Amino acid sequence: MDFLGDVLGYVAGICTAICFLPQTISTIRSHNVDGLSLLSYIIYALGMLCWILYGLHLSALPMIIFNSPALLFALIIIWQIVCYKGKSE
Amino acid sequence: MDFLGDVLGYVAGICTAICFLPQTISTIRSHNVDGLSLLSYIIYALGMLCWILYGLHLSALPMIIFNSPALLFALIIIWQIVCYKGKSE
Repeated sequence: MDFLGDVLGYVAGICTAICFLPQTISTIRSHNVDGLSLLSYIIYALGMLCWILYGLHLSALPMIIFNSPALLFALIIIWQIVCYKGKSE
Repeated sequence: MDFLGDVLGYVAGICTAICFLPQTISTIRSHNVDGLSLLSYIIYALGMLCWILYGLHLSALPMIIFNSPALLFALIIIWQIVCYKGKSE
C-alpha cells in the first residue's frame, strides 16, 4: 500500500474530473461567456480526449473515469461559448 | 516502442500544459474576468498541484513538466479573477 501516492492520485483525479463543473453551471445560468477563451477550452478538450484514448490504449480505467467528466464539461462550455459569444456583448 | 501510446501521451501532456495560456493572455489583455468561475480555477489548480506532488512522489518527470505550466497559468488566472472581479461590472 502506498497511502500518500493513493491520496495524491485520487485527489488529483477528482479535482480533474469536477473542476469545470462550477464553470459549466455558472455559464448555463448566466449565459455570460464574455471573458472565456474558446481556444483554451478547445485545447483543454483535445487534451482530455487524448488522456481518455491513452487510458483506453493502456486499459487504465481510472484515467478514463477521471477524464471523461472533464471532457463532457469542456464540450458543454465550448458549445455555450459558440452559442452565446457576441450575444452577451 | 509504443508509438500510438507515446503520441497520445505527449499530445495529451502538451495540451494540458498549454491549454490555459490563451485564457491567461486574453485575461491579462482585457481584464475581463466576468464569466470566469473562481471556484473552477481553484479546484483546477489544486488538481494540478496534486499531479505535480504525485509526479514528485513517483519521480515521474513528465508528470511534473506537463502539469507545472498548467498550475502557473491557473494561479495567474486566479490572481486576475481576485483582482478584477467586480471592477469589470
